[in-house]
Amino acid sequence: MKVLFIGDIVGSPGRDMVKKYLPKLKAKYQPTVTIINGENAAGGKGITEKLAKQLFEAGAQVITLGNHTWDQKDTGDFLEKAANVIRPANFPEGTPGKGHTILNMNQLKIAVINLQGRTFLPAIDCPFRKADELIDIVKKETDIIFVDFHAEATSEKEAMGWYLDGKVSAVVGTHTHVQTADERILPKQTAYITDVGMTGPRNGILGMKKEAILYRFLTAMPARFEVLKEGPAQLNAVLVTINGETGKALDIARIRIDDDHPFNADQ
Amino acid sequence: MKVLFIGDIVGSPGRDMVKKYLPKLKAKYQPTVTIINGENAAGGKGITEKLAKQLFEAGAQVITLGNHTWDQKDTGDFLEKAANVIRPANFPEGTPGKGHTILNMNQLKIAVINLQGRTFLPAIDCPFRKADELIDIVKKETDIIFVDFHAEATSEKEAMGWYLDGKVSAVVGTHTHVQTADERILPKQTAYITDVGMTGPRNGILGMKKEAILYRFLTAMPARFEVLKEGPAQLNAVLVTINGETGKALDIARIRIDDDHPFNADQ
Amino acid sequence: MKVLFIGDIVGSPGRDMVKKYLPKLKAKYQPTVTIINGENAAGGKGITEKLAKQLFEAGAQVITLGNHTWDQKDTGDFLEKAANVIRPANFPEGTPGKGHTILNMNQLKIAVINLQGRTFLPAIDCPFRKADELIDIVKKETDIIFVDFHAEATSEKEAMGWYLDGKVSAVVGTHTHVQTADERILPKQTAYITDVGMTGPRNGILGMKKEAILYRFLTAMPARFEVLKEGPAQLNAVLVTINGETGKALDIARIRIDDDHPFNADQ
Amino acid sequence: MKVLFIGDIVGSPGRDMVKKYLPKLKAKYQPTVTIINGENAAGGKGITEKLAKQLFEAGAQVITLGNHTWDQKDTGDFLEKAANVIRPANFPEGTPGKGHTILNMNQLKIAVINLQGRTFLPAIDCPFRKADELIDIVKKETDIIFVDFHAEATSEKEAMGWYLDGKVSAVVGTHTHVQTADERILPKQTAYITDVGMTGPRNGILGMKKEAILYRFLTAMPARFEVLKEGPAQLNAVLVTINGETGKALDIARIRIDDDHPFNADQ
Ligand SMILES: [Fe+2]
Ligand SMILES: [Fe+2]
Ligand SMILES: [Fe+2]
Ligand SMILES: [Fe+2]
Ligand SMILES: [Fe+2]
Ligand SMILES: [Fe+2]
Ligand SMILES: [Fe+2]
Ligand SMILES: [Fe+2]
Repeated sequence: MKVLFIGDIVGSPGRDMVKKYLPKLKAKYQPTVTIINGENAAGGKGITEKLAKQLFEAGAQVITLGNHTWDQKDTGDFLEKAANVIRPANFPEGTPGKGHTILNMNQLKIAVINLQGRTFLPAIDCPFRKADELIDIVKKETDIIFVDFHAEATSEKEAMGWYLDGKVSAVVGTHTHVQTADERILPKQTAYITDVGMTGPRNGILGMKKEAILYRFLTAMPARFEVLKEGPAQLNAVLVTINGETGKALDIARIRIDDDHPFNADQ
Repeated sequence: MKVLFIGDIVGSPGRDMVKKYLPKLKAKYQPTVTIINGENAAGGKGITEKLAKQLFEAGAQVITLGNHTWDQKDTGDFLEKAANVIRPANFPEGTPGKGHTILNMNQLKIAVINLQGRTFLPAIDCPFRKADELIDIVKKETDIIFVDFHAEATSEKEAMGWYLDGKVSAVVGTHTHVQTADERILPKQTAYITDVGMTGPRNGILGMKKEAILYRFLTAMPARFEVLKEGPAQLNAVLVTINGETGKALDIARIRIDDDHPFNADQ
Repeated sequence: MKVLFIGDIVGSPGRDMVKKYLPKLKAKYQPTVTIINGENAAGGKGITEKLAKQLFEAGAQVITLGNHTWDQKDTGDFLEKAANVIRPANFPEGTPGKGHTILNMNQLKIAVINLQGRTFLPAIDCPFRKADELIDIVKKETDIIFVDFHAEATSEKEAMGWYLDGKVSAVVGTHTHVQTADERILPKQTAYITDVGMTGPRNGILGMKKEAILYRFLTAMPARFEVLKEGPAQLNAVLVTINGETGKALDIARIRIDDDHPFNADQ
Repeated sequence: MKVLFIGDIVGSPGRDMVKKYLPKLKAKYQPTVTIINGENAAGGKGITEKLAKQLFEAGAQVITLGNHTWDQKDTGDFLEKAANVIRPANFPEGTPGKGHTILNMNQLKIAVINLQGRTFLPAIDCPFRKADELIDIVKKETDIIFVDFHAEATSEKEAMGWYLDGKVSAVVGTHTHVQTADERILPKQTAYITDVGMTGPRNGILGMKKEAILYRFLTAMPARFEVLKEGPAQLNAVLVTINGETGKALDIARIRIDDDHPFNADQ
C-alpha cells in the first residue's frame, strides 16, 4: 500500500496546488491514503473548518498540524469534532483535539500520529515518550503507522527517525518548509525524511512575501507577514510504499512539482 | 567555470570520504575550484592546522567554517596565518582570522565569502550588512562571488538567497547537516540551495553517535557527543556552473554519495 | 546632582502611579532630572506620542524604551521628531529614532543612553561596542552619563555594569519588571542595579492579567495579554546621586512604593 | 516556625560564606530548618557528595539543585542515595534522584519541592503540573510546603507564585544569582520572591571571573568560566516565617550580607 504525504499547505496558492495536482498524483500513484499537513492553510497561519473541508474534498483523508495549530479562532471547537484533523499529540494535557487517528482504507487500518519537536519551539510534553505511548495504543489495531514529526532542528528529527526505526512505517518531518534530499529506508525498515517541504508560493520566504521578512531581518522591527499570492507555486510531497501485512516500509520517494520540475503523468 | 562545494566534513569518516571521492569528483566534473566547509573536521568540533592541510592536499582550495570555528585550541593563531581558511565574516570586530578570500584559478578570480546566521545561533554582527560590505570590496576584483551561509533557520537562509540574488554567483547554506532538495537558479541568476548537507557518517545523528544524542533528548542530562566511526559514510556537495565573464550562475546540481547513491563516474 | 529613574511604566495603572507619585518624589528628593522607561506605557505594548506627552507633563525629562519600542503604529515617525524619547541605540542602522540624548538641566549637561541586550532577545548590534561609541561622543560634552540597559539575562547586565564601570555615572537595568536588591556603587564609582523593576499593576504577572499568562504556560496555546486594571499598583525606581563635576556616582538607592511599602514624604 | 533559605552557593567563596555565617544566622534567627541551593557549589558547576556533606555539616538540612545538577561526574549515583539532596522534580521520568523530600524537624513535618522552569532553559516536563502532582502527595503528610523554583524568566516565576498561592507555604526563585526586592506574602498567604540571589564572590559576573564572560560577550568566542576566588563575597538568603499548624506564610524577609551590608547579630 502507498501513502501520499503532502507538506505544509501555505495559503491559497498552496490550496490551489492541492486542488490542481492531487487528482493527478492520485491517478498516477494510486495511494491508499493521502495525508496533508495543513498548519499554514489559512493565510499562512493555522486552518479553519471550511479550509479543512476543501482539502478533504480535494482528496485528503487526514490533515496534520503543527505549531500554527491555534492561529485561527475557534480551532479548538473545530478540532474537538473533526475526526481526521489531528494536532501534535504531545501538546499539554487538556489541549483541545487529539494527536492520532486510525483510518480504514481498502480493508487496511492505517494509524497517523502527529508530534511536535521542542528544540527552538515551545516547551511541551516529550515527543519521544508520547510516541511510545501512542504506538502502544495503535499497535493493538494495526502495524501501519505513519508519523508526521513537526520540528525545527535536524538533530531532533533524525533522533526521532532512529528512535522509531522498526516501530513505525514512516517518520516524515514537516515545519521547515524546505524539502530535504535525505529520504531513505532506515535499517529496520522505517521510511524517513527530515522534511517533506511545503506546498505554496515558490518565490517567497517559507511562502510569505519576502519583503516583510527581509525587513525584519534587517531592522529587527515588526513586519506583517503575508502569503505571497503572485508568481509560481510549488508542491512538495513524498510517496511511501509500505508492506500492508507487516507495516514495514519498502520505499520512499520525493515529489517536487514546480516550474523547474513540471508534473509528468507518465514518468 | 565550475565550483564544487562539499558540505560540513564530520570527523575522520568525513575526511576519508573527501580523500576517496574528491579525486573522482574532480576527474568527472573538472571544477575550477573546490571549496569545503570544514567546521566539524576535528572529531566533529572545529578544525586544526593539520587537518586543514589534509583537506587541501585532498584537493580543496578554500575551507570555510561556522559556529564550531573555535572548538579546537589555537585556531585563532592558525586562522591568522592561513590564506584560504576563512571563518564567518560577521564574527565581531577583533575576532582572529578573516571572512573572505580571493583566489586566482585558471586566470579567473573567485571570491569566497563565509557568513553566519543569527536565528537560533549566537548574536553576532548582521550577516546581511556584512555581505553588502564584502561584496563592495570583492566586486572591485571579480564578479565571481561564492557565499557559504552557515545558518540554522530556513527563513534566514532563504532571506539571504533573495537578498543576494543578482549580487553574487551563489549562496549555499551549511550547518544543518542535511542536504535540501530546493537547489535552483534564482531569477537574477544566483544559484541557491538551503543546505548542502554534511560529509561523514551516515547512520548517526548529524554524524555523531546516536545513542548519546537520544539520551540527551530523553533525559535532558549531558552526554558526550562523539563522531560515529563505524558503518557507512556519505558525501554531500553541490556543483555550481557560473559564467566566468559575468559571474552569473547557469546551473546548480546536487551531489549525494552514499550506499543508496553510489558514485558513478560516467553518468 | 540627583537622577530619578522610574522603571517600565505598564499601562494606565503605571501612568497613574507616575502622575500620583512623581510630584511627591520630586518634592522629597529634588532630582535634577527624571528619566522614565516607557516601553510598556500603551496597554503594556509600546508608547504613543500622546502618552509620552503625559509622562513629560507628569514630570519626566527623558523617556527610554526597549524591545517593545515598535508595538504601536507610527512610533517611527514620532521617534524621528521627539527630542527626548530614545530607543535602544544598538538597534540596527537605519532604524528610526536615536539612542541617546543630552539635556541641559540646572546648568549641568546630562547624557542619557539607552541600550538593549541580546541574550534571549532579538539579534541586534553589539551593545558593548555601541556603548563605547556613544560614550566617546557624549564625553565631549559631559561626564554625567546615565545608561538604561534593557536586557533579560543577569549575566549580560552585570557584564555591562563592569564593562562601563568608571566610564559612566550609572548603569541601571530594565525589562524584567522585577526590582533587584543588588544596587551598589562599583569600584570605579559607577552606580549599578540589575533591574529597576516596573511601575504598574501589582497583582498581575509583569503587570498583565495573570489568567492569560498562566493559561499559556499550562497549555502552550495563545492567549491575549492585557494590562491588569483592577487592584493595587506599584512604583519602582532608583535615585542616583552623582558628583556633578566628575560624573562619579556617590549613591544609589532603591525606591519601592506599594501597599506594603507606602510612600513616606519624611523618611 | 521559620525556614532559612540560602541562594545558589558558588564555589569555595560561597561555601566559605555558608561556613562563616550560617552559624551566626542560626543563632540570630533560630530557623526550624535551613535549605540551601547548591547547584553551583563545585567550582560553579554542580555539586559533589563531599561538598554536599560540607553544607550539611555547616548546618543545612536540605540541598536543592537546578540546571547545573549534572555538571559533575557521578552525581546520578550520589543523588540516588542522598536522602535530602533533591533536584528539580520535573526532570524527565527515569532521571536519577528525586525532586522532593519531607523532613521531621522539632515535631513538624516540612516538605521541600524543587522545580525548574522551561523559559530560556531546556525543555523538560511541565513544572506547574508536576507541582500539582507533588503537592497532592506531600499534603497527605503536611501543610508546610516549601518550593524552590529554579527558573530564568520573571514571568514564569511570578506565574508559579500565583499558581501555587494558597497551596504551599512559600515559592522562592533561584537561578538568576541576583536577589530581587519583590518579596511579599501573596493574598492567600504564600510567601514569594522572584529570586533569592546567590552566595559567593561579589565582584564577578554571577560569581564567575568577569574577564572570561566579558570576552565571550564581546567576541562570541568560547571562554573558560571560573569561579572568582579573590575579593569580597556575599550571602543572599530569605527567612520565611510560617504558621506551623496551617502552613500559611506569615512573613518573608530578605537577607543580604556583603561589604556594604555587614552582618549584625543584634538588629
Ligand atoms: Fe508550516
Ligand atoms: Fe510549523
Ligand atoms: Fe556543521
Ligand atoms: Fe554549524
Ligand atoms: Fe518592559
Ligand atoms: Fe522589555
Ligand atoms: Fe545557580
Ligand atoms: Fe541555575
